[in-house]
Amino acid sequence: MFARMAFAVLIALALSFAANRVAAQTPDETYKALGLDKSAPPDKLYDALVKRYNDPSQGAGKGSLSKFWEPIPISKYLDPRDFYQPPQSVEADATRAQCVECHAQSTPGWTHSWQKSVHGNLDEIRKLSDSDPRSYKKGLLTEIESNLRSMGVLKADEPLKEVGCIDCHMSVNKEHGQHKTELKMPDAAACGQCHLKEFSERESERDTAVWPQGQWDKGHPSHALSFKANVENAVWAAMSEREVAEGCSFCHTPQNTCNSCHTRHEFSAVEARKPQACATCHNGVDHNEFENYLLSKHGTVFQTRGDKWDWNARLSDAMEKGGMNAPTCQFCHMEYQGQFSHNMVRKVRWAFEPTPKIADNLHHPWFEDRKEAWVGTCSNCHSNSFSRAYLENMDKGVMSGIAITERSRSVLLKLYEDGLLPRQNSNRPAPPAPEKDGPGAFFQLFWQKGNNPSAVEYEFAEMWEHHKIKHYKALAHANPGGYTYSDGWSQLVKSAARINDEDARLREAAEIRAELKRISSTRLGGLLELNTPEKRAIAGAFGFIALLAGLGLLAARNRRKIT
Amino acid sequence: MFARMAFAVLIALALSFAANRVAAQTPDETYKALGLDKSAPPDKLYDALVKRYNDPSQGAGKGSLSKFWEPIPISKYLDPRDFYQPPQSVEADATRAQCVECHAQSTPGWTHSWQKSVHGNLDEIRKLSDSDPRSYKKGLLTEIESNLRSMGVLKADEPLKEVGCIDCHMSVNKEHGQHKTELKMPDAAACGQCHLKEFSERESERDTAVWPQGQWDKGHPSHALSFKANVENAVWAAMSEREVAEGCSFCHTPQNTCNSCHTRHEFSAVEARKPQACATCHNGVDHNEFENYLLSKHGTVFQTRGDKWDWNARLSDAMEKGGMNAPTCQFCHMEYQGQFSHNMVRKVRWAFEPTPKIADNLHHPWFEDRKEAWVGTCSNCHSNSFSRAYLENMDKGVMSGIAITERSRSVLLKLYEDGLLPRQNSNRPAPPAPEKDGPGAFFQLFWQKGNNPSAVEYEFAEMWEHHKIKHYKALAHANPGGYTYSDGWSQLVKSAARINDEDARLREAAEIRAELKRISSTRLGGLLELNTPEKRAIAGAFGFIALLAGLGLLAARNRRKIT
Amino acid sequence: MFARMAFAVLIALALSFAANRVAAQTPDETYKALGLDKSAPPDKLYDALVKRYNDPSQGAGKGSLSKFWEPIPISKYLDPRDFYQPPQSVEADATRAQCVECHAQSTPGWTHSWQKSVHGNLDEIRKLSDSDPRSYKKGLLTEIESNLRSMGVLKADEPLKEVGCIDCHMSVNKEHGQHKTELKMPDAAACGQCHLKEFSERESERDTAVWPQGQWDKGHPSHALSFKANVENAVWAAMSEREVAEGCSFCHTPQNTCNSCHTRHEFSAVEARKPQACATCHNGVDHNEFENYLLSKHGTVFQTRGDKWDWNARLSDAMEKGGMNAPTCQFCHMEYQGQFSHNMVRKVRWAFEPTPKIADNLHHPWFEDRKEAWVGTCSNCHSNSFSRAYLENMDKGVMSGIAITERSRSVLLKLYEDGLLPRQNSNRPAPPAPEKDGPGAFFQLFWQKGNNPSAVEYEFAEMWEHHKIKHYKALAHANPGGYTYSDGWSQLVKSAARINDEDARLREAAEIRAELKRISSTRLGGLLELNTPEKRAIAGAFGFIALLAGLGLLAARNRRKIT
Repeated sequence: MFARMAFAVLIALALSFAANRVAAQTPDETYKALGLDKSAPPDKLYDALVKRYNDPSQGAGKGSLSKFWEPIPISKYLDPRDFYQPPQSVEADATRAQCVECHAQSTPGWTHSWQKSVHGNLDEIRKLSDSDPRSYKKGLLTEIESNLRSMGVLKADEPLKEVGCIDCHMSVNKEHGQHKTELKMPDAAACGQCHLKEFSERESERDTAVWPQGQWDKGHPSHALSFKANVENAVWAAMSEREVAEGCSFCHTPQNTCNSCHTRHEFSAVEARKPQACATCHNGVDHNEFENYLLSKHGTVFQTRGDKWDWNARLSDAMEKGGMNAPTCQFCHMEYQGQFSHNMVRKVRWAFEPTPKIADNLHHPWFEDRKEAWVGTCSNCHSNSFSRAYLENMDKGVMSGIAITERSRSVLLKLYEDGLLPRQNSNRPAPPAPEKDGPGAFFQLFWQKGNNPSAVEYEFAEMWEHHKIKHYKALAHANPGGYTYSDGWSQLVKSAARINDEDARLREAAEIRAELKRISSTRLGGLLELNTPEKRAIAGAFGFIALLAGLGLLAARNRRKIT
Repeated sequence: MFARMAFAVLIALALSFAANRVAAQTPDETYKALGLDKSAPPDKLYDALVKRYNDPSQGAGKGSLSKFWEPIPISKYLDPRDFYQPPQSVEADATRAQCVECHAQSTPGWTHSWQKSVHGNLDEIRKLSDSDPRSYKKGLLTEIESNLRSMGVLKADEPLKEVGCIDCHMSVNKEHGQHKTELKMPDAAACGQCHLKEFSERESERDTAVWPQGQWDKGHPSHALSFKANVENAVWAAMSEREVAEGCSFCHTPQNTCNSCHTRHEFSAVEARKPQACATCHNGVDHNEFENYLLSKHGTVFQTRGDKWDWNARLSDAMEKGGMNAPTCQFCHMEYQGQFSHNMVRKVRWAFEPTPKIADNLHHPWFEDRKEAWVGTCSNCHSNSFSRAYLENMDKGVMSGIAITERSRSVLLKLYEDGLLPRQNSNRPAPPAPEKDGPGAFFQLFWQKGNNPSAVEYEFAEMWEHHKIKHYKALAHANPGGYTYSDGWSQLVKSAARINDEDARLREAAEIRAELKRISSTRLGGLLELNTPEKRAIAGAFGFIALLAGLGLLAARNRRKIT
Repeated sequence: MFARMAFAVLIALALSFAANRVAAQTPDETYKALGLDKSAPPDKLYDALVKRYNDPSQGAGKGSLSKFWEPIPISKYLDPRDFYQPPQSVEADATRAQCVECHAQSTPGWTHSWQKSVHGNLDEIRKLSDSDPRSYKKGLLTEIESNLRSMGVLKADEPLKEVGCIDCHMSVNKEHGQHKTELKMPDAAACGQCHLKEFSERESERDTAVWPQGQWDKGHPSHALSFKANVENAVWAAMSEREVAEGCSFCHTPQNTCNSCHTRHEFSAVEARKPQACATCHNGVDHNEFENYLLSKHGTVFQTRGDKWDWNARLSDAMEKGGMNAPTCQFCHMEYQGQFSHNMVRKVRWAFEPTPKIADNLHHPWFEDRKEAWVGTCSNCHSNSFSRAYLENMDKGVMSGIAITERSRSVLLKLYEDGLLPRQNSNRPAPPAPEKDGPGAFFQLFWQKGNNPSAVEYEFAEMWEHHKIKHYKALAHANPGGYTYSDGWSQLVKSAARINDEDARLREAAEIRAELKRISSTRLGGLLELNTPEKRAIAGAFGFIALLAGLGLLAARNRRKIT
């Protein structure tokens, strides 16, 4: 009896500890949004998070443009929650062991990865000495077991024996299941059942990204609503080339799955800590963070010295215990006021695109507070004075990029308003629904028909969506060659030159056409040109009259002569 | 006597084993092409392979355009078989030891590399324990010795003592030689004498790349005929800038040498297994496989976890023993139906350029079989269902790239047919022989004179030869940002926009010219312009007649008045 | 007495040895330029170097364009010598220990880096066994102490205990100091007090880069005068976007600081030996050395095998002891005639831009000698014959790049002379002072207003400043795909095509304008157009006269009829 009570108290204490662990890292904004107290036990927090995660009105599913597009075969892997169906070819009620046995033959890569993963070696983790940099995982394991007990998945005294195929692909702690009907592709909520802390931190991105002047929609940009951002994009929904469009989805999956960063089936924390983990998505023409990082001094120190860092140390220990002496993507973007979490947008200020609406509001406390948080981050390795000087430099440099872009925007808009773009009035098909036409618009980077977009519009779309952003990203990631010449400022200058050139050319062409029209329509000039049947008829008539008149005159003369 | 017989039997068995080892990996197509039975002993196979390798009618040497170009000094290193001559400055009959001794002074890098190579440490290899991941090399060594015995290079009981300078640069097992006359740069056949299995596999690329609808010439694309592809290229042969042209040759050397991938003088298998071994040639504007791989999840796992893989494990053991949990270039492209070989084009379907002629035949068994082989490759780590979904996604995505390119092609062809390209009729020099003119042709990426190519032709050449291919390569290597925006689809959209813009501009210019001509040539208008001496003379004459007429009329009136 | 004398002799010997150590690596040109004998003791050499380093007439400070620009907050970190002021917020007279104590809290990254640096562990270095590849540092330490004794910083028998914050940020061997007034950001001269050998080698770049035909100014290009090159650049001084301009400065800092390559606060020699140490500055659109290196076989061997090299071995031991079997940036550029030093421009021939003035003088002994020095470098791993063949290939390839560029230059210049660039006579603002206008000039890559630059000028600026240079850099760094197609030759061909296209277009537009003007101004045609009040008045008058004449004629006829 006493033992039972004591045990119950212990469980309660453990649960309360678990709630506190999770709460400590999850921002207040999230508890408020979910209508929970910070002392809410794991099961309550998880249920509330999952309810929101699955709510179409909160960004789950096909979105408001759903009638314009249909999934294709690959889609079921990009949004398994909505589209995955298990294959009907495998007839088996498989046990834990049978899953591994069969897949060791059919897909050996999976099982090898899993066999060397933490999931496949929970007992090894439990045996780690406290001096091992991975020993913090013992605490995580205890926390996870506590979460699972709160959810009723584990019994009070039951440890988590292993994490095998079935735990993620059917349900945790299940012993066997029907491959044809019960198999699922795990979504973020599935991972979140064990990794509640990380899931709640990640989901908190919805709650902290609330822009004071509506620069971006609530919760954007973020990983938590990354798939929503994809399916709500008009040109994405409009494109008939679905296989190309699903290329966008490949990077817009973090909402749907955790394995964008922790790739299956090793789910290695070491992998996820290295800058290349971000590279597949954060590279390229419109957000080249990875390239900028690698070329910055931060990145070159990582490249030259990172082989000697202990990547098993968690981020908060990386400098002291891991020997890390240059930041990674993860160190700066997961840190907020000295704590590290899976909310990576908590210090976001310029987001993905620097716009006048951000530039004009940088002195608003929302932006100022975030700048202060950045000063704190930089101050890990730089003086307060340097940090402020650099952040100011970045802000002002970004504003120069905005200014030159807006000048070119007005040149293009005037051309469009004046109807002077090539064949603007004769061969400019509208983009497919739900996309709408507009000069230099985002959709013009992905769709082309007739003279829509014109070359100068594509140029401007590149200017604002590629060069301006790369200028900013290079400034933000301290890659000086990037913003001065390779990808930023000099490219903006090029686009400005080309757009003004095109303005000169199109206006000259319009003047020439007008001049030709004027010449052609001049009364006599027009008649003389005889370029229509009517004119030729009239000319013929005049000619006939002139002939008659001439003959008449001649006759008159003759008559006079006669007379 | 008995001992002798037993030995002979052993040798025969060993030879037969060696033949089987080689045969097991060499496709049937090659034995058939060489007119050999699969039980042919190593010397027969080698002789047949070398005979074909050296046969100009089978792709050896300067090729059919040989009269249009001459080698330059660097050429002797790019095609040593045809152009290498030993330096006449070194007067020495050098022994094995003397080679090393002298070159340790004159070219220390060579000797250091060799000293740490397998070639320089055969006995170390022989002593490896069976648990060492490199222990498979013991078997290779036995096989090589067996080959050499079959060829009469080693005596029946003679082991291969070392592989020193002289073995490759003069001949195997030679003791000394004349630097001035006997020195050679080893070609692939030289390496193939020992490495017969690898040589025969590599040479088999000639035999398996036989396209059912003639999409590519027999044996192309391949490493085995890569130099032939170079010297048979018209603009390559035509270019007067031979030093630039030989830049192409630098990558088109695998036909001529093995050290494109296994760089001298370490010839490291570890190096050749890593993705960067492919990078020098498989990067850039028209086949950016390396960049795509690195940015794919395959590549980022390699980048984040590859430092912990045991690269000494051979490819077939890489996942199980090497800890490899993401594929490399080598893993996917050297694998065919579960076996690994040096025939890297056995699953090729879209080759280097996706064309309608491939797209239209994908359901032909030749293509279907290769797709099935790919499903097998992907299934090492992905489900059958995922593999098929992705491969279908790739195929359809590639076809979208073909479609937009073909639309632009027709726009350009019409401009060319209508003679509307800038100065097409006044300043379009023909390219030098043996190249021939054509709109948007490959040669226009490398040669420029007057208004050939025009900017719009270069644009189209980039479209089909760069953007379309990069679109495909990004799809094939799972780099979503690559095909959606950075290098693929969005670039195709840009080119399409620019080409249609140019179409509008050139046709408008033509209309303006026509209109001006029409105005100028209008009878009266033309006369009124007085822009030639003739017109001025006629006008003067008319003026004189008019004057006379006027005077006459006046006189008549006067007369009338008089009357 | 005897002991004293003996000690004095020992000191003298030590100093003389130190002088010789430094002298051995410092070129004669530098001693001559400084007016010193090669036996000059360390303090004399250091004083002479520092005097020159701080001399505005020798390139120190804001330069001759100083009145056109002002520093911004970040500038004090880019040129601390001229702009740094310690923060006034910290009130402390700090001891050695207090510096560390406080900064371990406020900027932990710094102190962790320092704690694992050589600076933070001098005694560890002193204890290294001679077999340790880092043991050469013991000799350096002795040399440094000898230098410091010569300068009176250390007493005769005093060892250097440690290198802490205060030694670099206040002065060497100081015990405490005022944060508000004594704190400084170390410049290269500060590092040079201990690292005199490296400083004098680096400073010698001023003396060896003296071009025989004035292709570049004395001492350029170099690291030693890199900041001078920045501040003397007209568009840099002219730009109003100072934050962008300071992006240039970020790479032009090696004159001002050593931590461009040896990043603070580990100052790792291993880092500085790896190719990525050069990457932040030597990449991108106008000098992509890093990218070319990585894609060359040199770079791919580094990438595949470099993880097994011992980077603690110094460059001169790298091949023999470090296992290095491919060159790095550092190996080839720091080597000169078998010795390694911090003068990295001693073999420079084509510098940053290949020009006709270099091409035309390659047979001058200055260039020939440097080519011979390169043959020596390449011969570490290549035959003399290969080295010469490749260097010749590079030179001739570069000359092809110059030739095609110069042809396009003449096309552009003619357009400019003829006043035919878009709106050249109506909307071409002059660049801000001290920059001056010019067609296709460098400034046009960074400044844009109205129709200056025009698109064709930006195209040409890219051609000579990006494509031609990347063509050369790819040839020089053995990246064949780089010079043939991705970044070199084919890009030059594209620019040539576009420039000739634009020439056709602009000249056609001019002809059309002229033709329209001619038509409009043709006597009758002009009258008929009635496009001015005068013409309409005259036409009206003629019309009136014609009407009168017509009426008169009619009247006459009528009269005739009457008669």
